[in-house]
Order: sequence, then C-alpha cells, then structure tokens
Amino acid sequence: MTIREIRARELDPQAFIRDKVSEIKSVVGDGMVINALSGGVDSSAVTMLGHKALGDRLKSYFIQNGLMRDNEPEQIVSLFERMGVKVELVDARESFFRALKGITDPEEKREAITQTFYKEVFGRLVKESGAKFLFQGTILTDVDETVAGIKRQHNVFEQLGIDPQEAFGYKILEPLVQLRKDGVRRVAEALGLPASVFKRMPFPGPALSARVIGEVTRERIQIVRKATAITEEELAGIPAFQYMAILHQDRVTGMRDGGREYGLQIEIRCWDSVDARVATPTHLPYPTLERLAKRMTSEVPGVVSVTYNITPKPPSTMEAI
Amino acid sequence: MTIREIRARELDPQAFIRDKVSEIKSVVGDGMVINALSGGVDSSAVTMLGHKALGDRLKSYFIQNGLMRDNEPEQIVSLFERMGVKVELVDARESFFRALKGITDPEEKREAITQTFYKEVFGRLVKESGAKFLFQGTILTDVDETVAGIKRQHNVFEQLGIDPQEAFGYKILEPLVQLRKDGVRRVAEALGLPASVFKRMPFPGPALSARVIGEVTRERIQIVRKATAITEEELAGIPAFQYMAILHQDRVTGMRDGGREYGLQIEIRCWDSVDARVATPTHLPYPTLERLAKRMTSEVPGVVSVTYNITPKPPSTMEAI
Repeated sequence: MTIREIRARELDPQAFIRDKVSEIKSVVGDGMVINALSGGVDSSAVTMLGHKALGDRLKSYFIQNGLMRDNEPEQIVSLFERMGVKVELVDARESFFRALKGITDPEEKREAITQTFYKEVFGRLVKESGAKFLFQGTILTDVDETVAGIKRQHNVFEQLGIDPQEAFGYKILEPLVQLRKDGVRRVAEALGLPASVFKRMPFPGPALSARVIGEVTRERIQIVRKATAITEEELAGIPAFQYMAILHQDRVTGMRDGGREYGLQIEIRCWDSVDARVATPTHLPYPTLERLAKRMTSEVPGVVSVTYNITPKPPSTMEAI
Repeated sequence: MTIREIRARELDPQAFIRDKVSEIKSVVGDGMVINALSGGVDSSAVTMLGHKALGDRLKSYFIQNGLMRDNEPEQIVSLFERMGVKVELVDARESFFRALKGITDPEEKREAITQTFYKEVFGRLVKESGAKFLFQGTILTDVDETVAGIKRQHNVFEQLGIDPQEAFGYKILEPLVQLRKDGVRRVAEALGLPASVFKRMPFPGPALSARVIGEVTRERIQIVRKATAITEEELAGIPAFQYMAILHQDRVTGMRDGGREYGLQIEIRCWDSVDARVATPTHLPYPTLERLAKRMTSEVPGVVSVTYNITPKPPSTMEAI
C-alpha cells in the first residue's frame, strides 16, 4: 500500500479534520471503536478525531503500564475529562513488568510490550467492548522507519503485511498516517487540544522502557522516571524538539563520602529537529549541563555519572534503544 | 607508615633529585635495580632518577601488554635511547590478553593485569636479572585513593600492608611517593625530560583496558585505541588536565545506509584539574564536540553514538572504571 503524504505546508487542518471525520463515519458505520490514549500528540489527536466522529461510540482507555512518567496517567485522563472525553484508566502494571522480566534485548522488549498490550491487556478490553475497530496514532515517520528496519514501531502492522484482524482480532484505523509530526501538531491544535498537548515533545510508545538499557524492572523504571523529571524540569524553557534521560546498564566508578562507589550513569539527549527525520544535539549551555549533572548525582539514588549525547541523527537515532 | 607530603610550591626540584639520588645509592648499594617504564611522567621520572643514581645497574623494561596507544611502545623506547637510557621492549601481549579473557568486573581486570605483570612477566624478568629492588612511580594521590578504597592502584602494596618481597619476591622503592602530579612534572623537567613527557597527560596503569567497559579483547582494545587517537588529535590544543575516550559495553540503536544498526557508544571525558583530586569537565566548544562525534562515527567501525561526560569529580572519578 502506498501512502500519499500530506506535507505540513500544504495541510488545511480544518479540511483534514472534516475529511477524516466523514471517512471514519463511513468506515465504522454504527459500530464501536476502541482506542488507547497515551497522551502524546498523535494518540490525543486521534482520540479527539474519533470523539468528533463517533461521540460515545468511541471508547478510550489509558493503559497504565507502569512505564509512564511522574503522574502522567492521572494528568492525561483529567485533561480529556475537562474536554468532555471520558477516558478509562486501566491498571496493567503487573502484566507489563511480568512480561519484561529478564529481557535485555531492545527488540524483545518492544515485542514483549506489544504482545502484552495487544494480546493480554487491550485484546481483553476489545473483546469485552464488542468493538471491531481500533484507532491508532501511526504517523508517516513511524512507517518509514519500520519499513527501513531502523526501529520496530508497534503500530504499523498493515504496512508490514501483518493482518491485525488475524493477529489480534480487529481492524486498525490510522487516520494520521499521511502526516508527519509537524502536520499532526497543526491538526491537534485545530481540534482544540491545549498547547501542552499539541506542542508536546514526542515520547516513545514503550514509554520509559525505551529509556532503560538492559532489563526493565520497577526499580530501574523508578530511577529513569526520576531522571526524566529532573531533565524535563531543567530543560522546560529550552526550545528543543525533544529531550530525554537514559539509564545505562554499564556501571562506572564514582566516589561518595570519600569511598569508591561503582554506580550508575545517566545519558541526556536533547535534540534540535523539525520532523525527527534528521536531528542535531542542542547546544545546551554548560551551566545547564552542570546543573543537570549536579541534580542527577544528588537526587537520583546510585547515579555517579552523567553524559550528554553529541551525535547527530543519523548515524544516531533519537531514542537510545 | 606516614608519608610526608612535599607540596609543589615548596619543592626544590634539584635538591629533591640530589636527595633521591643519594638515597637510592645508599639503599641499593652495589645491587641491581629493575623497573618498568610506561612512558608516563611518573615512571619516566623514576627511570631518569634511577639512571642518574645507578647508570647501567638500572635495567629498564617497557612491557608491551597490548593495551597501549598507537605506536606508544616504540616512541617511548626511542625517546629514552636518544637520552642515553637503554630500555628493553618486551612483548607480553599474549599473556595479558589470555589473563583478561572473559573478565568484565573492573577490579578483577586490574587484578588480572597486576598478577600478570608482577608474577608472570615482570617476576620472570626480575629473577633472570638477579635484581632485588624494583622502582615504581607511585605518587601520593595513588596512595590516598587506594587507602580510601576509591580505586585499586597496582603499585601501593606497602601502604596497604602487603609485603612485596613476600608476595612478589623483591623490594619496591617509590622515590616519588611524597609528591603529587604537579611536583612530579617539575622534577621530570629538572631531570631533562622533554615537554612531551613532563607535560604529558596522566594515563592509567592498566592503559586502554581502563577505557573498556566490559570484557577486554584485542578487538575492543583496537576500537578504543582508534577512538583514543582521534580524541588526542582533536583535543591536542586544549589546555585540559586529561582527556580520554571510553568504549561502553551497552549497545545503542543507530542508523546507517538507511537501516538499523545496533552499535557501539564512545564516551569522551575531558577534565580541568590541578592535581586530580577534584576535577570539572572542560567546557569544550560544540564545534569541537561535533567534530569528535563525526570522526568517531565515520572512522571507528561500529560506533553510532558519542557522549561527553558532564559530571565533576567527585562524585565521578576521572577514569570510568
């Protein structure tokens, strides 16, 4: 299937919304649609589009997988409630951490999350709901990178020739698949979403598990969650495309209270980019880097070392794994 | 044993040299002394001091352990020959790589290198030479850090209460143990060593094996050797205390020729410091960092990601392991 790209500069957001709302209505008919909201700009735009087209026949879930940032699930659910969209919060932390236990390979992690999400958690919800359709916030960059084999995105089955109906029991609709991130932001704004959503930094599908090199455990997620909160606080005013903290598996020597501590290292990445296809590290001022290092090593238990990534994409990718 | 520190500002290098030469003569008598020259400022100063005191009764070896930088063994041996000091180059690469095989723990690596150096390689040379004394370039910072348990230096046995005569079969003399690095540099200059030695950056005893996180193999040493050469070329004009490249064991995602490459990460550290006790990362300009990243990812096979360390010592240490 060839996808016709709609570039941000040729996009008329209101016309796009009208077209997609009418397309959704005609495909879904009087059926039910289910979707999972992560709070990112893609899934938020899809949720609003679906709500506009279907009202209460869209059933939205926020899956608490235990891999989210501080307070993220509660904040997102309450934001959508204020906009008149009911989102159900589903606690699936046990399922995800059980599936991730012992896995260190990045592809196996993504696979474990995908399988847990679709088969165990979401599959059950779909069956209970009777929905035959599922919305997903796939954008064109996801498709490109998955087809190129750079990264396994968990929402591009059809492009890979995998039939989601056969694999998971339902049909996936991807209303944003012709857009890239800059286009999606304009659509999200036109849908009435607040700037905290339409200007929101990209955040990966596997959430903080994509920010942990090596095994993902509750404890290691808690460490990278704290490091993420510090990074987001300190860089909040920086006009970057995306920033992140990554917990390494490698241990490095440090010293604390005059003694040796074989401790943890956090890597910070901060990207300048227009559409995520290419990116360069932001020239963060050294006082900012030093404050980040100071806070990481004093506030995050076990951290003795902090680095800043200086590699462009390509050959780097934006996320570490 | 309490060591009386001689601070650089109170040091009279010529008087220090006179005292040490006479001390060496009186301790050694008409015996033979053996030492291993690494080419660092400490072992170079010790070699020159010993040569001044004992002439041909000092037998100096350069142990080629396979962990040195590009061309380092040959350059150092020929430098000393030009100064009238004969240094024998001993190829012990097999022994070191065999001892390091399969070891990932930093302390076990240091221990493997120490044991190979003293028992297998140097022990044999000492026995063959008939020497009863061994010179070592231990300085006060080594002693402090070893006593504090921050790092295991391989040349501070007496301070730890280990008898080198009993453990290794000879007596260790440490003529520089009252000095810190700044004092040693002044002594080295006064001994007639060239600026390339007395201003030389510190380089760790375990050499490039201290720059490899995880297992040390010929292949991984070759990677970090190349990264080290690039770092030293690019930062040659920077007035920093020390800079280094570290090969991580963690792998990160990158992209090459449009496809995914699960590749290597190199960490660069560059330190501002007076005496290595405390240190802060040098504020390298971003164009310099970008050139480093560019060269690492295009010239070092498998490298897709480069970071710059932004943590002060403490809580970091200068070396990674």
